[in-house]
Amino acid sequence: MSKKIVIIGGDAAGMGAASKIRRTHKNWEITVFEKSPHTSYSACGMPYLIAGQVDRPEKLIARSPETFINDYNIQAKTLHEVIQIDPDKQKVLVKDLEKDEAFWESYDKLLIATGASPNKPAIPKINTQGVFCLSTLQSGIEVWQFMEKHKPKKAVIVGGGYIGVEMAEALLEKGLEVTVIDRSAYVMKTLDQDMSEDICQSMRKAGIHLMLEESLTAIETDENHQLQAVKTDKKHIPADLVILGMGVKPNTKIAEEAGIKLCDTGAVLVNDKMETSISNIWAAGDCASSYHILKEKPMFIALGTIANKHGLIAGSNMAGENSTFPGVLGTAITRFNELEIARTGLKELEAKSMGLAYKVATINSSNYAGYYPGAGKIKVKLLARKDNLQIIGAQIIGKKGSAKRIDTIVAAISAKQTAQDLTMMDLAYAPPFSNVWDPVQIAARQLV
Amino acid sequence: MSKKIVIIGGDAAGMGAASKIRRTHKNWEITVFEKSPHTSYSACGMPYLIAGQVDRPEKLIARSPETFINDYNIQAKTLHEVIQIDPDKQKVLVKDLEKDEAFWESYDKLLIATGASPNKPAIPKINTQGVFCLSTLQSGIEVWQFMEKHKPKKAVIVGGGYIGVEMAEALLEKGLEVTVIDRSAYVMKTLDQDMSEDICQSMRKAGIHLMLEESLTAIETDENHQLQAVKTDKKHIPADLVILGMGVKPNTKIAEEAGIKLCDTGAVLVNDKMETSISNIWAAGDCASSYHILKEKPMFIALGTIANKHGLIAGSNMAGENSTFPGVLGTAITRFNELEIARTGLKELEAKSMGLAYKVATINSSNYAGYYPGAGKIKVKLLARKDNLQIIGAQIIGKKGSAKRIDTIVAAISAKQTAQDLTMMDLAYAPPFSNVWDPVQIAARQLV
Repeated sequence: MSKKIVIIGGDAAGMGAASKIRRTHKNWEITVFEKSPHTSYSACGMPYLIAGQVDRPEKLIARSPETFINDYNIQAKTLHEVIQIDPDKQKVLVKDLEKDEAFWESYDKLLIATGASPNKPAIPKINTQGVFCLSTLQSGIEVWQFMEKHKPKKAVIVGGGYIGVEMAEALLEKGLEVTVIDRSAYVMKTLDQDMSEDICQSMRKAGIHLMLEESLTAIETDENHQLQAVKTDKKHIPADLVILGMGVKPNTKIAEEAGIKLCDTGAVLVNDKMETSISNIWAAGDCASSYHILKEKPMFIALGTIANKHGLIAGSNMAGENSTFPGVLGTAITRFNELEIARTGLKELEAKSMGLAYKVATINSSNYAGYYPGAGKIKVKLLARKDNLQIIGAQIIGKKGSAKRIDTIVAAISAKQTAQDLTMMDLAYAPPFSNVWDPVQIAARQLV
Repeated sequence: MSKKIVIIGGDAAGMGAASKIRRTHKNWEITVFEKSPHTSYSACGMPYLIAGQVDRPEKLIARSPETFINDYNIQAKTLHEVIQIDPDKQKVLVKDLEKDEAFWESYDKLLIATGASPNKPAIPKINTQGVFCLSTLQSGIEVWQFMEKHKPKKAVIVGGGYIGVEMAEALLEKGLEVTVIDRSAYVMKTLDQDMSEDICQSMRKAGIHLMLEESLTAIETDENHQLQAVKTDKKHIPADLVILGMGVKPNTKIAEEAGIKLCDTGAVLVNDKMETSISNIWAAGDCASSYHILKEKPMFIALGTIANKHGLIAGSNMAGENSTFPGVLGTAITRFNELEIARTGLKELEAKSMGLAYKVATINSSNYAGYYPGAGKIKVKLLARKDNLQIIGAQIIGKKGSAKRIDTIVAAISAKQTAQDLTMMDLAYAPPFSNVWDPVQIAARQLV
């Protein structure tokens, strides 16, 4: 029997689910409401657009609303915001943002894929022109257009996480003077401090003013309301562009108002089928929780890879199949200029706070055979449970080819492999790719 | 109680074992006999020496005999060939190649790490100057010196395996006209033909004359015994340099004469402790068999990574510990110019010949996010058992960053993961490194 599917949110999770349902059921009615003008875009590509490495925003769009409508028979309605869910009557209240009209739409099965929104500090003048968050494609385009038009010269980035580091590289690439402020003692807090210090060093060496243990307190403007500077608890920093990279929070207002359970982290609580606490309603993507395999609890991690997997699993179950999501390890990867950075599983600080007895090895080696031209440094930090040496986490920084090695460890953790198992794996070696003992295995050997 | 260790062969396996024993027992007497002048070198680096990317042979030596003697108290005796093993009296007959004298040396525990030797076809004039095999570091140095001195212009490489492809790149880099002959219908026979065809195409595009289904029948010289050409079953090809890359055979003469069991493939048969059929004798490295995890039988695979692992396990057991070698997957990686090539586990042909019911997916994707500058093609072929979708093999070819992705699959196969497991792994994604679904996962999804 044909079903009527409604999906709230038209990015990775929502469109992934829609596409999966369409592949399984040619005749089901699938409608997606997306409040922005765009569907299925790569938010992660925005720093590279702003850096000029990607030449226009359209390149970041995987599939347009027209493609979904024409090629997939998925009704992708952009500039439509769902403002209320009625789970008893199984319908949603939708606001057409262009016509400024609202209407009720019924559903048999509903997916909440409302994403996340950037955190903004509650300080005066935070909405001044020239102060941006990066979240939706629209926000990326606004930064890009602002830069084209105003040619800013001094940027302040607030927050030294992934967005902060990637934007620092991008703005440096565009010739700006770049200051990064972070209230912590080090950047990239998903890594341990000993690993982060190499990144701080690399950023400073590239000319970035890195202001640690320093907090944004105010935005300063001139008499014409033009952005002039930021103020921190320590100093005053001239700026004609401010990027806020202070993390995101899940968009759960309508879910919460509908009585759907949230988890501690504020995300919509889902089980391994991506089902919420109310029947016929699933959630996926940045707004939904992800079970952390090692922490054994639901977490809020807003990442494109996870959103895509959520979407596939939710779509599969909504289509009547039986798929489960095993959970996440908190894997992440990025780059600052030549320095590649990756992490997965637990960092030392996390293992400690869980009260887990662990062993740790940190090794320095080279990305290729030491004698091979262009060989550079790689540093691998590997954590294992103390009792059985089961691998529980890793952090890698290094030159070309370093960071993607994290995937070997992701696979090892996913399959509950030990340091001994990892040491003996038949990993690939040739001088342009690795040492004869892959750096990952050198770290594993040290744990054994 | 202190033991007397004798090791035959001073490259990766032998020296790896010696070092491991030394780390465990500070006072044991450890003597290594190596017939060549060198210890612990990277044979795999020779093509890059010949290409000029590594500027001198010494760079390929990890540790010299002097280092072993002075820093590790390991008696590394080069230019010493063991010519007989007497397992009853526990002694070996050693020939000092410089003094041309032989002497008996007793042992408590013996390791055979005699390596492998290149196959040479039984055709006239195969020992003509200018016709080379690549095996020991010495052989690499000879090619390198020959090229410095004679500046050859036309090279013929016989055999399109790893050595053949790497030498083709190296000689092309040095400006030679390069012909590669292979008696098969395609190069890189550890891959399936559909994957190899992209490599053949890439080699031809780079200007290599690729002569397939063609066999070397003779070496031709002029009246002064100077190399002039090679003759194949199809034609005559002018050449002033010939490289034979026709595989290797294990060096097992003294083992066999001592009554040690060999396996079908001709290698010394060892168990998972690297023990041979005779007590107090271990074998490791290219001369020893390796258990293939998926084929479930001992194989002969001569590779540096495996030799290093053999050495570590043999050394550990000889030192009185209890270590086991889980086996190999036949992982290999190389490169032809910009094209990266890797494989692991079973190729389609192998699965077929084992009578295994399998599913296969071959996908084309991009190494980085499609919109990221420099993004190039990647092709992943993934095999899984038909009954439970357990991953059993993979082949990858593609641009920068493609080949090392094989390690993710190596880990997955080692841990008996399925295509579904691989699809849901929390692999790393950022635009400069991957698509949001890693190509490996795109292939896994197709299998599911």
